[in-house]
Amino acid sequence: MQAEIIAVGTEILLGQVVDTNSAYIAQGLADAGIEVYYHSLVGDNADRLTDVVNQARSRSDLVVISGGLGPTKDDLTKQTVAQLLGVKLVEDQPAMAKIQQHFATTGQKLTPNNRLQALYLAGSERLQNTTGMAVGSFYRDPHGADLMLLPGPPSELEPMFENEALPRLKAAYHRQEFLVSRVLRFFGIGEAELVTQLADLIDQQTNPTIAPYAKVNEVTLRLTAAASSETAGQHLLDQMTATIQDRVGDYLYGYGDDNSLAQVVVNTLIDRGLTITAAESLTAGKFQSTLGDVPGVSAIFPGGFVTYANAAKHDLLGVPQAVIATDGVVSEATAKEMAERSRQKLDTDFAVSFTGVAGPDALEGQPAGTVWLGLAQRDRAPQAKQLHLTGNRAKIRERSVMQALDWLRRILRDQK
Amino acid sequence: MQAEIIAVGTEILLGQVVDTNSAYIAQGLADAGIEVYYHSLVGDNADRLTDVVNQARSRSDLVVISGGLGPTKDDLTKQTVAQLLGVKLVEDQPAMAKIQQHFATTGQKLTPNNRLQALYLAGSERLQNTTGMAVGSFYRDPHGADLMLLPGPPSELEPMFENEALPRLKAAYHRQEFLVSRVLRFFGIGEAELVTQLADLIDQQTNPTIAPYAKVNEVTLRLTAAASSETAGQHLLDQMTATIQDRVGDYLYGYGDDNSLAQVVVNTLIDRGLTITAAESLTAGKFQSTLGDVPGVSAIFPGGFVTYANAAKHDLLGVPQAVIATDGVVSEATAKEMAERSRQKLDTDFAVSFTGVAGPDALEGQPAGTVWLGLAQRDRAPQAKQLHLTGNRAKIRERSVMQALDWLRRILRDQK
Repeated sequence: MQAEIIAVGTEILLGQVVDTNSAYIAQGLADAGIEVYYHSLVGDNADRLTDVVNQARSRSDLVVISGGLGPTKDDLTKQTVAQLLGVKLVEDQPAMAKIQQHFATTGQKLTPNNRLQALYLAGSERLQNTTGMAVGSFYRDPHGADLMLLPGPPSELEPMFENEALPRLKAAYHRQEFLVSRVLRFFGIGEAELVTQLADLIDQQTNPTIAPYAKVNEVTLRLTAAASSETAGQHLLDQMTATIQDRVGDYLYGYGDDNSLAQVVVNTLIDRGLTITAAESLTAGKFQSTLGDVPGVSAIFPGGFVTYANAAKHDLLGVPQAVIATDGVVSEATAKEMAERSRQKLDTDFAVSFTGVAGPDALEGQPAGTVWLGLAQRDRAPQAKQLHLTGNRAKIRERSVMQALDWLRRILRDQK
Repeated sequence: MQAEIIAVGTEILLGQVVDTNSAYIAQGLADAGIEVYYHSLVGDNADRLTDVVNQARSRSDLVVISGGLGPTKDDLTKQTVAQLLGVKLVEDQPAMAKIQQHFATTGQKLTPNNRLQALYLAGSERLQNTTGMAVGSFYRDPHGADLMLLPGPPSELEPMFENEALPRLKAAYHRQEFLVSRVLRFFGIGEAELVTQLADLIDQQTNPTIAPYAKVNEVTLRLTAAASSETAGQHLLDQMTATIQDRVGDYLYGYGDDNSLAQVVVNTLIDRGLTITAAESLTAGKFQSTLGDVPGVSAIFPGGFVTYANAAKHDLLGVPQAVIATDGVVSEATAKEMAERSRQKLDTDFAVSFTGVAGPDALEGQPAGTVWLGLAQRDRAPQAKQLHLTGNRAKIRERSVMQALDWLRRILRDQK
């Protein structure tokens, strides 16, 4: 069972709009156990659309097409597909009634092109549009590839795909096996290094499959297992996870598509009832803002300091001017002072500090990318750590925040 | 002159990541006057990639391919294209030196697969990667279509395309006329409303063309003029800009691809020597961190406060507990107190404050999305403004920051 996806629309062809539909459809098909090998994108042009659809039909079992079902002159997907299949378009009565009612309610004029939206491929299953006007089609072709037509606006496509299309696809291409996935999230190891450490597992992968992916500042592995039951699939994932954990578990910080280092750290702090603050120079509030992204953070984060100028480090935190004068602002001593003094000010269990050179220019003779992180804990001596980061200003600030979160994660793990 | 675009990567094929590169490249090619008829997307599979590239070469004059230049076993674009062209891969010395230096600086292990990134197609022009490791290629084929290879991560692709690829494409496919573009950036007006206000201009567009584009929290218009000289092209753009400014100039905050509301505000403050601070509850440092993204901000931003808990508003800023008790923490009075007191603490010309309900839960009986912004100025009474925002927690915090920046922009404009 092999599918491919076609997006239609001149505005996406020209790059004025990014096509998010194809990714959305691909995810849905993957969840239904349908493999996708190609996506194509073509403008609102009948000849080129015909070519692309015919090629797709020749090499795939199912072709899912989005876009071009609307009322404008550009919208010609339905007409083009009907012609190449040699079938007629028929009117869906409920859709036509909805269109008429909309125009009656709003007092707009119902032009003939609006009626087009109620048409679907004769002999197909009509897919209802609950958030728009244009109906979709699912055409089973006994002699060739099946075809599915979906509307272009994501607000219409997504509910139609979820509620109308997916149940029909699952019923049509029923599989005996269950597919289960798990995402493993890593920080502090590059994609190349991770893949090298797991090279034999990746080379021999059959079930589960292992897909590495480099994201911004982290790497994920998606494990997907096929099995006769959900439980059997989870068992396969558990075994592979344990093998991976043995090798690179030090960098594994969490699981799931919807997770982050900040979530893991904040939720651990909440679970243990430990509070945190920060004093940020280099990062100017980015660390605290990242904590603020996690719902429930107010339980353990009272607030903190952005001390960009040296005077602010002294006036707001009480960092002695002598320390800055002697050791420099980008130094171990300043980082420790910032962390410990902010911790004392807000009487928290933890405090993190950031001082460094974001660039583009050097500071105190230190190149851009030189960073000191400070970390203070109640009843312990403050620590500091130097980083040498590369990249532009935004990257250096972002990576500093991630490094601090990972430092906290490791301390919380080891002090458990 | 006809081009097509191919994106390579199993993670985009499966829909785990949305392909934004193809749209970006399509826009750039349109600006260079190169027509695009097809986009395709294929996984990290040598056979299918070969098929797709060969088909593209058979029907187009230029094929631009993104993705698959990295260090992992999945990355096989370069090797596959070299094989189908029958050319070798050669090492770029500066790229290799950069890779070695990166691994030396960070202390990570340089595995052999990382060396792959320094290879490019023999006989091609090598495209430098200023933000990553993998070099690109521009291969002119006297017997067939030209090929361009670009890296997959947008942070690497975009600068390479802009600085290395586009000048070479323009030189290679030299047109008699000059194409000049200008990007107008708007905040506070939706795409639909902007397009409605400019409907007649957009309907009648010929030269310059007008391409609206909705970005995160803003809308841009790209004007592109074709003329016999750069000067004549700029003149056409000036005329159209003036017409647009007459209608929607109130929302127009700046120009250029590489610009933002934060840059406009920070650079205006720097130009006028005006300093700023902030007291952030809702946004937890996001406003200050956004200021911190702009190089040179240290001249006008000494630092500020994150006062998430009520106690921090009192302890760090001195907001009277009675004000919070009487008016509530999400109130006009609290917003004004936070702004004015933070301004006094750091003796700045401006201060902005944020207090509100980020959600998901309501607070003090006020629903998520209720926000008060405060704004204090030296020698003026503090002001406050209520917002009712929709969306999730992240959106509400982001939009609050943007609204505050736009408020500052308007004040700076009107007080000029």
